[in-house]
Amino acid sequence: MAENVIVGIIGAGRIGRLHAEHLVHRIPRAEVRVISDIRLDAAKQCASELGIARAEADYRKVLEDKSIRAVVICSSTDTHADIITQAAEAGKHIFCEKPIALDLGRIDAALQTVEARKVKLQIGFNRRFDANFRGIRNGIRAGKIGEPHILRITSRDPAPPPIEYVKVSGGLFLDMMIHDFDMARYLIGGEVEEVFALGGVRIDPAIGVAGDVDTAIVTLKFKNGVFGTIDNSRQAVFGYDQRVEVFGSKGMIATENNTPNRIRVSTAHSVQEDLPLNFFMERYIDSYIAELEAFVDCILEDREPPVGGLDGRMPVVLGMAARLSLEQNRPVALSEIR
Amino acid sequence: MAENVIVGIIGAGRIGRLHAEHLVHRIPRAEVRVISDIRLDAAKQCASELGIARAEADYRKVLEDKSIRAVVICSSTDTHADIITQAAEAGKHIFCEKPIALDLGRIDAALQTVEARKVKLQIGFNRRFDANFRGIRNGIRAGKIGEPHILRITSRDPAPPPIEYVKVSGGLFLDMMIHDFDMARYLIGGEVEEVFALGGVRIDPAIGVAGDVDTAIVTLKFKNGVFGTIDNSRQAVFGYDQRVEVFGSKGMIATENNTPNRIRVSTAHSVQEDLPLNFFMERYIDSYIAELEAFVDCILEDREPPVGGLDGRMPVVLGMAARLSLEQNRPVALSEIR
Amino acid sequence: MAENVIVGIIGAGRIGRLHAEHLVHRIPRAEVRVISDIRLDAAKQCASELGIARAEADYRKVLEDKSIRAVVICSSTDTHADIITQAAEAGKHIFCEKPIALDLGRIDAALQTVEARKVKLQIGFNRRFDANFRGIRNGIRAGKIGEPHILRITSRDPAPPPIEYVKVSGGLFLDMMIHDFDMARYLIGGEVEEVFALGGVRIDPAIGVAGDVDTAIVTLKFKNGVFGTIDNSRQAVFGYDQRVEVFGSKGMIATENNTPNRIRVSTAHSVQEDLPLNFFMERYIDSYIAELEAFVDCILEDREPPVGGLDGRMPVVLGMAARLSLEQNRPVALSEIR
Amino acid sequence: MAENVIVGIIGAGRIGRLHAEHLVHRIPRAEVRVISDIRLDAAKQCASELGIARAEADYRKVLEDKSIRAVVICSSTDTHADIITQAAEAGKHIFCEKPIALDLGRIDAALQTVEARKVKLQIGFNRRFDANFRGIRNGIRAGKIGEPHILRITSRDPAPPPIEYVKVSGGLFLDMMIHDFDMARYLIGGEVEEVFALGGVRIDPAIGVAGDVDTAIVTLKFKNGVFGTIDNSRQAVFGYDQRVEVFGSKGMIATENNTPNRIRVSTAHSVQEDLPLNFFMERYIDSYIAELEAFVDCILEDREPPVGGLDGRMPVVLGMAARLSLEQNRPVALSEIR
Repeated sequence: MAENVIVGIIGAGRIGRLHAEHLVHRIPRAEVRVISDIRLDAAKQCASELGIARAEADYRKVLEDKSIRAVVICSSTDTHADIITQAAEAGKHIFCEKPIALDLGRIDAALQTVEARKVKLQIGFNRRFDANFRGIRNGIRAGKIGEPHILRITSRDPAPPPIEYVKVSGGLFLDMMIHDFDMARYLIGGEVEEVFALGGVRIDPAIGVAGDVDTAIVTLKFKNGVFGTIDNSRQAVFGYDQRVEVFGSKGMIATENNTPNRIRVSTAHSVQEDLPLNFFMERYIDSYIAELEAFVDCILEDREPPVGGLDGRMPVVLGMAARLSLEQNRPVALSEIR
Repeated sequence: MAENVIVGIIGAGRIGRLHAEHLVHRIPRAEVRVISDIRLDAAKQCASELGIARAEADYRKVLEDKSIRAVVICSSTDTHADIITQAAEAGKHIFCEKPIALDLGRIDAALQTVEARKVKLQIGFNRRFDANFRGIRNGIRAGKIGEPHILRITSRDPAPPPIEYVKVSGGLFLDMMIHDFDMARYLIGGEVEEVFALGGVRIDPAIGVAGDVDTAIVTLKFKNGVFGTIDNSRQAVFGYDQRVEVFGSKGMIATENNTPNRIRVSTAHSVQEDLPLNFFMERYIDSYIAELEAFVDCILEDREPPVGGLDGRMPVVLGMAARLSLEQNRPVALSEIR
Repeated sequence: MAENVIVGIIGAGRIGRLHAEHLVHRIPRAEVRVISDIRLDAAKQCASELGIARAEADYRKVLEDKSIRAVVICSSTDTHADIITQAAEAGKHIFCEKPIALDLGRIDAALQTVEARKVKLQIGFNRRFDANFRGIRNGIRAGKIGEPHILRITSRDPAPPPIEYVKVSGGLFLDMMIHDFDMARYLIGGEVEEVFALGGVRIDPAIGVAGDVDTAIVTLKFKNGVFGTIDNSRQAVFGYDQRVEVFGSKGMIATENNTPNRIRVSTAHSVQEDLPLNFFMERYIDSYIAELEAFVDCILEDREPPVGGLDGRMPVVLGMAARLSLEQNRPVALSEIR
Repeated sequence: MAENVIVGIIGAGRIGRLHAEHLVHRIPRAEVRVISDIRLDAAKQCASELGIARAEADYRKVLEDKSIRAVVICSSTDTHADIITQAAEAGKHIFCEKPIALDLGRIDAALQTVEARKVKLQIGFNRRFDANFRGIRNGIRAGKIGEPHILRITSRDPAPPPIEYVKVSGGLFLDMMIHDFDMARYLIGGEVEEVFALGGVRIDPAIGVAGDVDTAIVTLKFKNGVFGTIDNSRQAVFGYDQRVEVFGSKGMIATENNTPNRIRVSTAHSVQEDLPLNFFMERYIDSYIAELEAFVDCILEDREPPVGGLDGRMPVVLGMAARLSLEQNRPVALSEIR
């Protein structure tokens, strides 16, 4: 007989509500028993809409509930490490949104508690669960392109976030490119040795005033000899530009953007297709469901989560190295980041 | 404050369970209160899995329930017309799977009751709600291709149904091409005047023994001067082949098949993409949700359903005309079918 | 040591000049010694531009020249059959533009002389030599799609010809669709048994006044069980629309239009590609060269030409059957055409 | 009356014969009077095949011929600078294959003579004349993508050259990536300020033994703020991989590879397209004709050639900077290269 995982959700913001809806409606083996948010109203409204039994203002109420087996942490980034530590101490399995923290000391402390308490920890790098990117990785693993030589990741947002968000985001390398650093490790299945960064302000001068860049290229030198590039822009006017290409000794595997339809219109002027999907929730909706299904299954089947603590830590190291490279205009070895 | 539509589902087979799941989990403005099936076990299991309050063996229990505002008819085709009639008499709004019946007399009787009782009736031609086909129609309506001249519909199943099903299906023209007849009317926004059919057995001789064809082409002459072709095959080994193309005075609008990903693999031998989606539930899942959302919204907002009684009747007429054309190897005017 | 074929060209109109240029500059094994045209000036200008030794007004001078081994007939359609007959009697190998004639009696008489004199005859169905269509046929022959079931040919011109031309053209079925009838036979490798035609005037009423149609669909029933459709339009505003698709028991093979480049532009409004090539000389230039190379090689290697007398006759039969079908609104067997 | 340019060709190797054939057969306004090669036999054979009046062993005979107005230099790279100088002194207009030299001093000396003698000099960066790349540049110039932000050039050969060639080639950056450096300048219409290079040996260890790399990525920082990447591989098993993408404030313009046909085959296993064109002469044949047409037209119309001396010099500077960057693992400013 099928067992369910009793879940508590911490944080009822946009991503918390999304996870809650998926757990309630789309993942039969999960049962959401409580949702907490420092804005109790938000937690209550979400609970009411989705038929979740309890809403709390204090996440510690979630951790204290003995019936809760797993927590999904969707609170603000600066709280992740502490809540991971406390949840681990309470014996809960943990799904946590990225990044764990913007400070390696705090990350390492949290990961040590997770390891000591032998709870499962999965980081919310949802793009690994996208059909395109998962298919690329599987194709590489299946040997379709032989040995990988060159990786290219293009990752461009449809529009920049509010400037207030930019100011506290940790910067493009840690807020946006962090997904691509994870993707690079995921696709190549190996670690990066050195990075070199180019960056500038081309979209909005206010981003520069805030001390950040909005356009950047980072090259990656992997330990296994693969070379990679990541390019980011805060504004691709044609939509959410999310592509990768891996070139190897026996071929190339690459993905186009997803589109809302497969229509082509031919007129006297041009042949037109629709724009790529524009919004991350639309583009990545299936991957958000799949990552939580994987988390729930790992608990039920007592397996390691597919995106673990090290996978949460390394992209932060990469982001820090890229930032240092940009500041000093020189290649930076990851071993320099401590 | 949002009102909900209380729904009863009649039939807990494959499509009934699909609609039930969507109504329960994906359409917040609907509430499923009861599901019936002559196999009570099937109804009970579905109710249990989805948290539906009641399960019944007899659909009349659904019709007798005063709290039920709308029914979704997913029982076998030969029961549709009778249940429509009874549901209309009970004052329920009706969503009914296609076809209404394979007999024009029964269709007309049912539609008369619907009209007399002023209940809403929507027929389950879900493909109208697919993003590709809806986009084609909207593009035509928006004038992107000027006056339509030539319509082409390609509609090929991944594999033939069981031969037992073929025997009772009404034949390819009424079971399979009926969707395409609806699509033709939907896209062109006008009525067909005359059809001519070619058909044969190329996939499985057993289909011929059962008196049916598995491969067919029908040409359509529309009253507004458009010419069309529909081609059907019971077996496209590469997947579910569902494409349309409309050519007009100012251009052409067409759709490719949907695929599970947008990956391209280039090797020493070829450049490969993934096959089209293979299964109708996968290919058309969003359209099944959208058609029920539209139905619920029509009730709540007191509007005409987007696929009405005439839309249920005309594809049956077209299927009969095509069958007659094939039998007599001559063009058949729709006016001949009574 | 390489031998050359000495060639005479009859007709210095558009297509004659094209063939002359190719024979002079692109086909080393051919040598053009004379070109004739009833407008001597045209012949002289072409000879001067291309360094051809002689220009004549009377094609009989070409036939009388003993050094000439092969003639390329590019004169007006009504002269083809007579010149074929005379050229055959003069012992010349013959390349003749399509159609041989619009009268089966004249065609058959010409073919009989060709056979009696044992000269080679190749008809100018150049599209057989196009990389797309040749690749489709080769793929079918190689078994890539198993047994063919359904053929679709789309063939739409960028713009209608001058109305004066329409009046003497023999009509859409014999002037334009004749290429597609040849293509159908070439791709399927079998003969058609019966056709059914739809046709109308949608582009230009003057075409109707001239007794012709500008938009047509013809269905084909092949003796081997394949069903086909051909659709023609005199005006595809987006360019020269030349596509085929063949669906079979093991798959499908199809071709997109050729474009002048492979550029994609993504803007805030759409993703755009360039239009298909617009002009038949641009679209089919390589096939014009290839058909003449094949003709020259057949002479030098004493092989049968790849497009023979029957290939010239059958499309005319198909065109006549289609015209009769349209007139009488009924399927017409090819056996009815004598 | 149309005037012709009398041309002499220096060098009857592969590229020399190609240019000769194009000048003779495809460019009516040119007339080739003489071809020279230190291997007189090669020159004679080419002259014989193409009907060129004279063949010489010594290129100085070409320069001494007063009737010759322009020379096309296709001799070995180490002779280019000297022959340019001597041709300029002889008052000939000059088309010269890339690179001018691998030594900036020799390049500058040759360019000074060209300038002093006021002869025209065009460098053979043929890819600028390719329909894809020219269309990309024209699209950018027309403002289709607004301000360019990110440039990506992918340029991968189908197979490595013979190792003997690699040894004398000047290395990947000066032999292969030199085309991409030119392309970068051409597309962006501005100069590069700084480069950073990654490179390694992934294809063939013998290339490493020869002191070269076979896989490389170079990032470009343009003076106008654009960032770029170029990636090269000596072996793309799927064909000649030649793509660019330019991303800007108002959109993106990119090009796919050219293929020999537009056929798609769908089977039970995959949807397949043909591989990209595999050989540079096949892929770029039209651009070779177009660059010589442009050269001839510049002479006849007394205009500046579209690829001038500076365009010949800068890619060499970029190649040297990239090589230095790889050696020292640091970004290198072009101003460091003298």
